[in-house]
Amino acid sequence: MNRFLDLADFTREEVTDLLALAQRLQDHPEPQALAGKILGLVFMNPSLRTLASMQAGMQRLGGTSFVITPGQGTWQLETRLGVRMDGGAAEHIREGFPVLASYCDAMGVRAFAEGKDLAADLAEEQFTAMAALINKPLINLESAVNHPCQALADWKTLDDVGVPRGGKFVLHWVTHPRALPLAVPAATLHMAAHRGMEVVVCRPEGYALPEATMAKARAAAAASGGSVTETTDRAAATAGAHVVYAKEWGCTAPYGDAAADLALRQHLNDWQVSEASFAAATTNAHFMHCLPVRRNVAVTDEVLDGPRSIVLREAHNRLVVQMAVLHRLLAR
Amino acid sequence: MNRFLDLADFTREEVTDLLALAQRLQDHPEPQALAGKILGLVFMNPSLRTLASMQAGMQRLGGTSFVITPGQGTWQLETRLGVRMDGGAAEHIREGFPVLASYCDAMGVRAFAEGKDLAADLAEEQFTAMAALINKPLINLESAVNHPCQALADWKTLDDVGVPRGGKFVLHWVTHPRALPLAVPAATLHMAAHRGMEVVVCRPEGYALPEATMAKARAAAAASGGSVTETTDRAAATAGAHVVYAKEWGCTAPYGDAAADLALRQHLNDWQVSEASFAAATTNAHFMHCLPVRRNVAVTDEVLDGPRSIVLREAHNRLVVQMAVLHRLLAR
Amino acid sequence: MNRFLDLADFTREEVTDLLALAQRLQDHPEPQALAGKILGLVFMNPSLRTLASMQAGMQRLGGTSFVITPGQGTWQLETRLGVRMDGGAAEHIREGFPVLASYCDAMGVRAFAEGKDLAADLAEEQFTAMAALINKPLINLESAVNHPCQALADWKTLDDVGVPRGGKFVLHWVTHPRALPLAVPAATLHMAAHRGMEVVVCRPEGYALPEATMAKARAAAAASGGSVTETTDRAAATAGAHVVYAKEWGCTAPYGDAAADLALRQHLNDWQVSEASFAAATTNAHFMHCLPVRRNVAVTDEVLDGPRSIVLREAHNRLVVQMAVLHRLLAR
Repeated sequence: MNRFLDLADFTREEVTDLLALAQRLQDHPEPQALAGKILGLVFMNPSLRTLASMQAGMQRLGGTSFVITPGQGTWQLETRLGVRMDGGAAEHIREGFPVLASYCDAMGVRAFAEGKDLAADLAEEQFTAMAALINKPLINLESAVNHPCQALADWKTLDDVGVPRGGKFVLHWVTHPRALPLAVPAATLHMAAHRGMEVVVCRPEGYALPEATMAKARAAAAASGGSVTETTDRAAATAGAHVVYAKEWGCTAPYGDAAADLALRQHLNDWQVSEASFAAATTNAHFMHCLPVRRNVAVTDEVLDGPRSIVLREAHNRLVVQMAVLHRLLAR
Repeated sequence: MNRFLDLADFTREEVTDLLALAQRLQDHPEPQALAGKILGLVFMNPSLRTLASMQAGMQRLGGTSFVITPGQGTWQLETRLGVRMDGGAAEHIREGFPVLASYCDAMGVRAFAEGKDLAADLAEEQFTAMAALINKPLINLESAVNHPCQALADWKTLDDVGVPRGGKFVLHWVTHPRALPLAVPAATLHMAAHRGMEVVVCRPEGYALPEATMAKARAAAAASGGSVTETTDRAAATAGAHVVYAKEWGCTAPYGDAAADLALRQHLNDWQVSEASFAAATTNAHFMHCLPVRRNVAVTDEVLDGPRSIVLREAHNRLVVQMAVLHRLLAR
Repeated sequence: MNRFLDLADFTREEVTDLLALAQRLQDHPEPQALAGKILGLVFMNPSLRTLASMQAGMQRLGGTSFVITPGQGTWQLETRLGVRMDGGAAEHIREGFPVLASYCDAMGVRAFAEGKDLAADLAEEQFTAMAALINKPLINLESAVNHPCQALADWKTLDDVGVPRGGKFVLHWVTHPRALPLAVPAATLHMAAHRGMEVVVCRPEGYALPEATMAKARAAAAASGGSVTETTDRAAATAGAHVVYAKEWGCTAPYGDAAADLALRQHLNDWQVSEASFAAATTNAHFMHCLPVRRNVAVTDEVLDGPRSIVLREAHNRLVVQMAVLHRLLAR
């Protein structure tokens, strides 16, 4: 294994193997497994969990890391090809990324969607261009439409709390002051389908996930014995649910139009997960969210602070599964 | 020992033991004592000494650390309970802190005063709320009205330079372009009283320390055989002083009113420590300050660059005593 | 060796020895050579290569580092002597630097030119003042008119690709949206002269390097059997060149006058290195640049992406040679 860019690159068995390695490292720490290894981390966007857990993961395995935050203590990076660089960016990724890669043994890169051209984002044009410049093991720490570390952590969390493989998993749109990227909803949808679950995407009109995203999930479901459907009916969606996974994302038609999105979402403030959302769910149905989450916007305090919430376990599992990924990429 | 939040939580003997451990680690380094241990550091406010010395302290003991700076490469954190989070903060401390704690073996948190409600700040409402979310050993790296690492370093510095236990310690208000928090003056006052010194708080009208702060110090003095008084008379205060400890802080009545504070302090520019401040002090009386200090505002170049100044020793002792705290919290 | 501040402090033999050590560490890693050692890094200016390679260099040798970025998570630092500090800077370097030095085993400092007073910058007044405050081994990570780590990396790169000692080295001014410091051109010019090369500085009217800089290089050339000339004739300069080293810098007469510089350079957009620049160069002449570089401003994509470019090797050699410097300063 040389790259961890998309959970779809791995079969169910390979995912299960990674999760078993994660569990093994939890049960039997290997504090010297990555001694002498260096992870280079590039954050084009803010982060709390990813920044802390990647550094801690290396440290737990005896390795080290360095962090580069373009535009903050480091030059802004240009990503476009062929441009005359007379603007704010002093350095191009075509130099910056190979240079950083030459200093370390593996890299992790976080780069949100451009949010302008849906086809370009779906094709992961920016992340693919960056990845092509890095001749070292590479981890996707969130790209335009993917977040495989989050997806792997969530899969482990579902296993940890005993959610059945075929259980009902509701990816539930919730509101937010502004449009957010598709990375987590796309990765989560695929993950649940890949795990073999009965997946329902529940979202208002205008917030359908892109057809390519849905098709990828349906293919994963077909291979794993699961299913993928979508609805605008919240009551139907959550009925019998084992998991309600709340997530904010922007409207996709039009895509990347902040004004249109705001106009749409001003009527959607009631798209919030509360205890009422679990009225017809299974007993002890779980609440999930990738964090950060806006309390009393996306979800009520009551749910977040109550026994349904497994968001802290999800976040802790980021560390756990990323250690497995790092071990697989770097251990001799 | 599981928390280092307030020097008042420790008896004189316990403080003396910590300082002895600090000295032992200086004399006999233990470069593997914290091997494999991870310290998570959260800075809600700027820092130079604390940031560098906490990282270096872990490194000197064989451990590692990671740094999170909310609002700078990391989401801004909301601290209020029950609010609808539709503003600038994307994440609540109720998620952020437990998650970070789950990645490390101990945490250090720095959070200045809110500076609005004196009772809330005196009660350490914000820091207490944060601390309650962290189920790991925790170090207070400065809170609304406390800075125990600074206090411990200052105590060691007083010992290092041979200031007698019962010596006269003047906590001397000095001016600054704007109001600063009460954390260091409150912690310093208590520390000197706890050490058993004759403590005089010398400050202009309007800058009396809160009664709760004074009362806490008087109780410590009573237990240690010291005393605590206050005055606006600089000549009387510094007469016979062994130590002049300069510190800037904001007016407390009204508290947190920047305009009122500015109106008050515009007449106080002569509240600056200079050689003249030592005219009636003991021979070789020492000048202390926690740093950062504004030269020729709070204190003259002459004093800072002269033989009285032990500010660099104080700052170096931050490293020395924090290593003892880390060792006590984390060593097997 | 206790300081690495200027390549001119080292004889050709000493430089060669350092490069041999760099090669030895590449061929025979010493992952524990600096175990327990701490490097304190202070960046007064943005960085990518320097920040990442200094941290990675310590990590590759078993040591650790901490990073302080004044004005960003840390107080702004005042550098002027004798001033009343009532402005934005909360701390003076006279406290900040000795304190940081007391936490670590060696320091690296990056501080660009003030860019106002040429004589002051040529005298390295600011960096010299900082260095005087640091009683630990010290590395210049770029100062007003020097960048010895870059120069050493470039020397190794010239060796690596087999450029003859007496080869023709063209330091070629190229344009940029605004004036940049003299640090790299001055260091590069001296390095090539010190190596014994036939050095030509090719720059437009108004952009002559300071006479002191030229004189220093001529002295180095005289000692090494090389030569230093300057010209505005790009065709003559690049004829027979083994290396075209592109670099942006500001006009020196007047110095530090942004408006005058902009007026001058608006007619100099054709001062860009392209394939045409190599028309009369030696076969396989190399293109060098310290990075970051603005594509299609300073140099064309074609050159940067073509076989002439050795910019990535230069950048990688930053890590390689800095490890030698760190080893020399810190290994027992």
